[in-house]
Amino acid sequence: MNFLEERILRDATVCPGDILNVNAFLHHQIDMKLIDQIAQEMYGRFRDKPINKILTIEVSGISIACAVARLFNVPLVYAKKTRTKYQPKDVYEAEVLSFRHKNINTIVVGKEYLTSDDHVLIVDDIMADGYALQGLISIVEDAEASVEGCAIAIEKGFQEGGDRIRNLGYTVESLVTIDGMEPHSGTIVFRPE
Amino acid sequence: MNFLEERILRDATVCPGDILNVNAFLHHQIDMKLIDQIAQEMYGRFRDKPINKILTIEVSGISIACAVARLFNVPLVYAKKTRTKYQPKDVYEAEVLSFRHKNINTIVVGKEYLTSDDHVLIVDDIMADGYALQGLISIVEDAEASVEGCAIAIEKGFQEGGDRIRNLGYTVESLVTIDGMEPHSGTIVFRPE
Repeated sequence: MNFLEERILRDATVCPGDILNVNAFLHHQIDMKLIDQIAQEMYGRFRDKPINKILTIEVSGISIACAVARLFNVPLVYAKKTRTKYQPKDVYEAEVLSFRHKNINTIVVGKEYLTSDDHVLIVDDIMADGYALQGLISIVEDAEASVEGCAIAIEKGFQEGGDRIRNLGYTVESLVTIDGMEPHSGTIVFRPE
Repeated sequence: MNFLEERILRDATVCPGDILNVNAFLHHQIDMKLIDQIAQEMYGRFRDKPINKILTIEVSGISIACAVARLFNVPLVYAKKTRTKYQPKDVYEAEVLSFRHKNINTIVVGKEYLTSDDHVLIVDDIMADGYALQGLISIVEDAEASVEGCAIAIEKGFQEGGDRIRNLGYTVESLVTIDGMEPHSGTIVFRPE
């Protein structure tokens, strides 16, 4: 059992609707030692790739993506869900269905922050249906940049996002894959590494 | 001129409506070396206080607050603007007017993540009217925790937030104070340190 699986068993809770509540260490309160451990593991898996940019999506991906960007010593760009007055006018955008919030967001990245010279590692905290990840991939493709891979902390392996994106030919590395969760008993079943 | 003033002059732009656009290094694309420099400076100013928790608000405060939490070796809690199904039921909340987005958000912090034992450093990236900061302070007070101080990267000194909060007796340390901005010429006037 790896460090993140241990932490999930200790401090996460399973809520109805296939929700894994990680508010205690990742989504509301953040344990930076854990974040740095996650980032180190992601760095180890992709350090041989020519990565010059990290891409994530607000909000909960930012803490991990910052720590990964520090290790690669490259800029981090985060896709925005809301368009405000002073955001870039020229953007790449994608429609993303949120599993957690049950709504559709248009996510945007300013064109000046993603170009055809970029070799991008996409980082996110949790992958369920994979729509956020797929939106980020489509933005990288629109920019004619290269997707060097996707690093995910927690993949819900019983939902179909991971399989769908791997079948498209992308490298997706998850530190933890959950094969099943049960809210009444609180049981969480991890896929063996 | 300090490192952050230099960076602002180099890469920020002044937009109409007293908006300082720092998308190039802080709000959309993030330069982790700069973030770590900002965090180090904040740590230096508050390291003698008995701080055991960092508090910020999503989204743009998170990158700096993570780096500060790492230096203090304490947990970071970020107030949430949206209430989702699996957020804590028992929360402290405050109403906050957003200068940038021109709307009112209810920000919440789960009661389990902020208690009367906590000595809190509040961290944010930009202070204008100071409503976000004041909302965070009121949440800390509701929890009967102690506000040890507020660390702000960029204060718009020509707006009244900083004065109002200091007059209430709180320590507010800003790395940069802007006394005036002019969108047509792009002029930014810093307050001497």
